[in-house]
Amino acid sequence: MSELDLQSILKFTVALAYEAGHVIRKGSEAIQLAGSNVDEKKNSVDLVTEYDVKVEELVKKKTSETYPSFKFIGEESYAAGSRPEWTDEPTFCVDPIDGTTNFVHGFPWVCISIGLIYKRHSILGVIYNPFLDLLYTGVKGSGSYVTHGGLNGTPRKLPFASSPKPLASLSQAQIAVEWGNDRASKPLTSRSESFHLIAGDPSNGVVGGRMAHSLRSLGSSAMNFAMVAQGGLDMYWEIGCWPWDVSAGVLIAQEAGGLVTGSHKVYAETKETAAFGDVGEAILTGRKYIVVRAIGDAEKETGREAQKRIIGEFYDTVQDYDAL
Amino acid sequence: MSELDLQSILKFTVALAYEAGHVIRKGSEAIQLAGSNVDEKKNSVDLVTEYDVKVEELVKKKTSETYPSFKFIGEESYAAGSRPEWTDEPTFCVDPIDGTTNFVHGFPWVCISIGLIYKRHSILGVIYNPFLDLLYTGVKGSGSYVTHGGLNGTPRKLPFASSPKPLASLSQAQIAVEWGNDRASKPLTSRSESFHLIAGDPSNGVVGGRMAHSLRSLGSSAMNFAMVAQGGLDMYWEIGCWPWDVSAGVLIAQEAGGLVTGSHKVYAETKETAAFGDVGEAILTGRKYIVVRAIGDAEKETGREAQKRIIGEFYDTVQDYDAL
Repeated sequence: MSELDLQSILKFTVALAYEAGHVIRKGSEAIQLAGSNVDEKKNSVDLVTEYDVKVEELVKKKTSETYPSFKFIGEESYAAGSRPEWTDEPTFCVDPIDGTTNFVHGFPWVCISIGLIYKRHSILGVIYNPFLDLLYTGVKGSGSYVTHGGLNGTPRKLPFASSPKPLASLSQAQIAVEWGNDRASKPLTSRSESFHLIAGDPSNGVVGGRMAHSLRSLGSSAMNFAMVAQGGLDMYWEIGCWPWDVSAGVLIAQEAGGLVTGSHKVYAETKETAAFGDVGEAILTGRKYIVVRAIGDAEKETGREAQKRIIGEFYDTVQDYDAL
Repeated sequence: MSELDLQSILKFTVALAYEAGHVIRKGSEAIQLAGSNVDEKKNSVDLVTEYDVKVEELVKKKTSETYPSFKFIGEESYAAGSRPEWTDEPTFCVDPIDGTTNFVHGFPWVCISIGLIYKRHSILGVIYNPFLDLLYTGVKGSGSYVTHGGLNGTPRKLPFASSPKPLASLSQAQIAVEWGNDRASKPLTSRSESFHLIAGDPSNGVVGGRMAHSLRSLGSSAMNFAMVAQGGLDMYWEIGCWPWDVSAGVLIAQEAGGLVTGSHKVYAETKETAAFGDVGEAILTGRKYIVVRAIGDAEKETGREAQKRIIGEFYDTVQDYDAL
């Protein structure tokens, strides 16, 4: 990794994210202005695709100009048929507009997500929400930060907690889950039965209920990772995301002390090994992700043991299913 | 209403909301700083209650100094046993920290909500999120606005859409629902079965499914109303809220062209009458709320007819249940 100047790449990527954010805001204005003048669905979808492509092209152009040897994986390039092989080379992994449903509706929980993958692992991440002016950054080995232009403008180290709090059980947790796009009976039933158990009060008739403190559904995978890094969410689980949704968030969460792993199966197979929490190509491309915030070491249990225990409790409760 | 200078009250209330927001931010810092130094649950709950009470006392003191004849309804005063009778007099209706679960977890979707009720109807509302610096205001007959300190700082009229978009069916809607605190089997099952149908794909095995574009759970009633006013959410439904959660939001949504009503029963009884969309004491205290954003008049259907149709479709899909 010595040949990569990560601080210089970070500076470049942040500037690019701000530039892209400007385009995303313009896109949102265009969608709002369109109003009722044209058929809503067709128009909105067209406009979203137009801006998704426009932002990705901007990022692809700028990254290839400045880092011509780096590879590129992007949502829109993938949708257009690009299937680059995964290599050990530095690779930008980009979701131009994460939270597209929020974007089309004008809900401000939207971001651009730019990760840098090297030797099949995330080593740098930038997530920028241009509507709330929230910038999350992380560099392997150097921690992760948030900068809120509006309120102070100076980077704040993640997580916010001065010393990470314990997390005794899911009953204390604020958990992000998502309804996703695949609403066929089988995956939807797996999801809604899982959410029911996570929420349910076992002392009031919900057998196996975990009485989680709260469930949130926010509609942006990258922002969910950022919020777990910050500590505003205790955990986040989703089946169906893609590498570009998570590559930046994984690194930002990890650098804030969070633990990321994959499916039920990956968890079971790695939890007692040194590979637990190591997020390489298999997990990044595995479509199934879970992340838990930093938990402090305690007398009886290290923070890492607590993270493992919480994921175990969670995976004992929710159903696995296949991503579309 | 001529004796009330609403613009002057608005100015006062906005300044008060900013002042309260400062206290809320301080409270959040205190909770983060506490970190793992003390027992998490007890400490967090204590701190939340402490700041909830502190903010409500500030608001109560300032409102009573400036408007000594106005009455006051507040969440913490109610919790402490205060049960003021509803009258026709001007009454401040205050939730000092709306989204307390988000607040305790450090998730920035939190606000203070101050409504002014007169003749048993909301006539003014101020909602301020001090973490994202988002201020929503509304005055009866004068429209509603958002001011985002960070990005521009100038008030922007709601909704954002230059002309309100159509909403053909729930399948196009982004809908906020909440899991709430009452997780006993009966209400939870009503909720999770309802969410399942709202989300479900009827062409893929979910009989009666509505395939809503998206479901969101954000954890703040007042912010949900504000987002419907803005157009970022198409609708929001919840059972279990209190007047202080909704009094500001109702007015802000109404002034942005949104339609608010109460339970299944209230909807059915009023939908063909002039009282439909009139939100008085019965709905404000009725614990069951639904709000739909502004919809434009179209050739075949007025916006109001469309709002009625959408609520009808929604209430045909979800189960009513009793608030705790």
